[in-house]
Amino acid sequence: MAKIPNRILLSEDEMPQSWYNVKADMKENHDPFINPQTMKPAKMEDLFPVFAEELCRQEFSTERYIPIPEEILNKYKMYRPAPLCRAYALEKLLDTPAHIYYKYEGQNTSGSHKLNSAIPQAYYNKAQGITSLTTETGAGQWGTALSMACAFYDLPLKVFMVKISAQQKPYRKAVMETYGAQVIPSPSMETAAGRAVLAADPNCNGSLGTAISEAVETAVTTPNCRYVLGSVLDQVVLHQSIIGLESKLQMEKVDEYPDIIIGCAGGGSNLGGLISAFMQDKLTGKRNPHFIAVEPKACPSMTRGKYAYDYCDTGHVTPMAKMYTLGAGFMPASIHAGGLRYHGMSPIVSKLYHDGALDEARAVYQNDVFDAAVLFAKTEAILPAPESAHAIRVAIDEAIRCKETGEAKTILFGLTGNGSFDLTAYQSYHENKMQNYEPTDEEIQKGFASLPKIPGIQ
Amino acid sequence: MAKIPNRILLSEDEMPQSWYNVKADMKENHDPFINPQTMKPAKMEDLFPVFAEELCRQEFSTERYIPIPEEILNKYKMYRPAPLCRAYALEKLLDTPAHIYYKYEGQNTSGSHKLNSAIPQAYYNKAQGITSLTTETGAGQWGTALSMACAFYDLPLKVFMVKISAQQKPYRKAVMETYGAQVIPSPSMETAAGRAVLAADPNCNGSLGTAISEAVETAVTTPNCRYVLGSVLDQVVLHQSIIGLESKLQMEKVDEYPDIIIGCAGGGSNLGGLISAFMQDKLTGKRNPHFIAVEPKACPSMTRGKYAYDYCDTGHVTPMAKMYTLGAGFMPASIHAGGLRYHGMSPIVSKLYHDGALDEARAVYQNDVFDAAVLFAKTEAILPAPESAHAIRVAIDEAIRCKETGEAKTILFGLTGNGSFDLTAYQSYHENKMQNYEPTDEEIQKGFASLPKIPGIQ
Repeated sequence: MAKIPNRILLSEDEMPQSWYNVKADMKENHDPFINPQTMKPAKMEDLFPVFAEELCRQEFSTERYIPIPEEILNKYKMYRPAPLCRAYALEKLLDTPAHIYYKYEGQNTSGSHKLNSAIPQAYYNKAQGITSLTTETGAGQWGTALSMACAFYDLPLKVFMVKISAQQKPYRKAVMETYGAQVIPSPSMETAAGRAVLAADPNCNGSLGTAISEAVETAVTTPNCRYVLGSVLDQVVLHQSIIGLESKLQMEKVDEYPDIIIGCAGGGSNLGGLISAFMQDKLTGKRNPHFIAVEPKACPSMTRGKYAYDYCDTGHVTPMAKMYTLGAGFMPASIHAGGLRYHGMSPIVSKLYHDGALDEARAVYQNDVFDAAVLFAKTEAILPAPESAHAIRVAIDEAIRCKETGEAKTILFGLTGNGSFDLTAYQSYHENKMQNYEPTDEEIQKGFASLPKIPGIQ
Repeated sequence: MAKIPNRILLSEDEMPQSWYNVKADMKENHDPFINPQTMKPAKMEDLFPVFAEELCRQEFSTERYIPIPEEILNKYKMYRPAPLCRAYALEKLLDTPAHIYYKYEGQNTSGSHKLNSAIPQAYYNKAQGITSLTTETGAGQWGTALSMACAFYDLPLKVFMVKISAQQKPYRKAVMETYGAQVIPSPSMETAAGRAVLAADPNCNGSLGTAISEAVETAVTTPNCRYVLGSVLDQVVLHQSIIGLESKLQMEKVDEYPDIIIGCAGGGSNLGGLISAFMQDKLTGKRNPHFIAVEPKACPSMTRGKYAYDYCDTGHVTPMAKMYTLGAGFMPASIHAGGLRYHGMSPIVSKLYHDGALDEARAVYQNDVFDAAVLFAKTEAILPAPESAHAIRVAIDEAIRCKETGEAKTILFGLTGNGSFDLTAYQSYHENKMQNYEPTDEEIQKGFASLPKIPGIQ
């Protein structure tokens, strides 16, 4: 057989025409959302004031394949299919018999996979006649992706950006504004939630919880406005399934199938999207790849969390989801992988992990992650985002283990984004100022104490 | 015929295996370098102390095709072939009958086409046994690309970075350091040239001229060290010819040929590389595309410069080249397209323009460039580098003209890089703080007064 190329490409005609919904093949669906007003399972209609109706339908759907509308395919084709890369240089450096592949989602201007869900979320809102959107952003990846998607569909967007992030990352703010979004440092005076926080502490730096509360409040109090979210939800995992569908086609092209599939896990959007198509093979008994979710030691929702009902946000404005969680009251340390500082985990990913289909979760230290990131950058020519580098760390560890055992395993990992907006982190690493964080048992217990009490359930 | 895809891709097997040297088909070669010590034409050997020998041979070569060594091809394949994109969304927005294509070179971590020459320059130095390199960088694109290439070949690199740039662009410095380069703000105490400048003005912000002088001095005074340069030279245009070679193959795939080819022009590396393969068709009478070089009004070397011998650097340490120049003493305004703030122009590009083969040079204002950049970002999903946006401006102008005349011309432009490190510029545009600059006739004359006197020549 001819040498496998460095980058395995698909033509746009080969791009999948439907998203794959892993819930269709799960032995059992995850437990339903709980509506905090009624303390009963949420109905689809309960979500209509917050999300576009078609997105609510997708949230509850158990259809196996959901066709991607042509309008969305046309936007995907501006930056997709994304390349699957063979890490020849890294394999050589590690002197490993393993075959290492990575799916690279960082080649679009938003710099990450987030655009895959931002486009459909903007599209379905526009199609319903919604006239403006709100969202929150911490590190800025999601806000950037949604700003781009809203520019495509000419939808005004308000992004509530955690104030300290907006100050520390002025370039993220600038790129969102370039795409036409209004970026509001949170807490702001625009909402009751923001005003209450500022009344208590005028110098408050903000938090993701407050930003979500402000975004949701703005959506439900502004006529014809809706809120959108970049992770955690089933609809997001559905949209992100394109990552794994493409990867599977690309591996088929070169007669490979992954023995190990590795993804970083924050809210679960990338991990769920990367693994879905391969998980189908496992759930239907066709193949048995080993799945590894990688999370920061500083925010170990799967490795040290509880499988319980919790709020999706620290502000307690969202429905409650059954998931692996550290408690919405858990406050993770300020690691540089801002996209992984989330207390919970996608209900789909959580259920797969709870049922053993997702084999393993592994937590890694920040400095070990950056060792891997810099090694990867120097050999594979791509500067990875700190979030993505969590997957690189474990991929390297597995490849080294292959060297020790002599096994030529095929490893696939998700390279979710590039690090062009994360140079502060690399600078800190370079100057030996980076710290490793890990919550104490006491901090973990304090987080658990914030879990909601639900009569008859928990 | 099937619909032309959004992104026309080449497999790595289809990537050109040789660079094309446009000098082989030029009616007449450009005038030789003049050695400032002897005031006579420079011999190849004169350059050996400064550049690797193979690179000197390429500088003087008039061979039509120069094979790309496999070691370099393997590195190119980590990010090439680069996509040729059809700007469907932009065409629709402009409601133009024109077909607009752009060759996108911004998908690698360095963010620009500069990596295409950084890799061979690092490779040939390594192959000769050179043990360290020096260079200068202003805005940082070239320094970043060379840092990556030096990491590939494990070559220590000192980058003299204009001090004010190093302070204003700490992230550029951080990415170079991540790739292992030593970044030295210039003027520095490391060289006689730097110490002299600091003795005169301890608070000096630095200039590209001083940085070049420091880099060359370090190269010639350090054992087994050489200097490398990212533009202007014939070898750089040769390496960058891969841009046009790929573009031509990609256009052939969809049965198109450009009527108009547009590139931004600073030192000429991108423009020369983009046009070379198409220029061959023109020089050999096969086709007659219209070539347009786009430069900033603030630094109009082709539209207002002289075709004369000049130093390539403001520090007068390099040989003199015959080129379009504003004089090495010309000080361009601080526009955001730092890569286009160069007083001269590649001797190859200059000669082609002087002889009429390169049809047209056009100068544009900064605000008009950013109008085009933001329009492009919102429709085509890529945030362009300010340099590249010069080409976008003229491509849009030509497409609008097509709408007026009803001609369905095929337009190709070079999108040399992304704007992820240029958000300060976009912020300034967004806040309406961006200024248009244009030198007065007096400033132009003052620049010309700095041109060297060469007995018997000028």
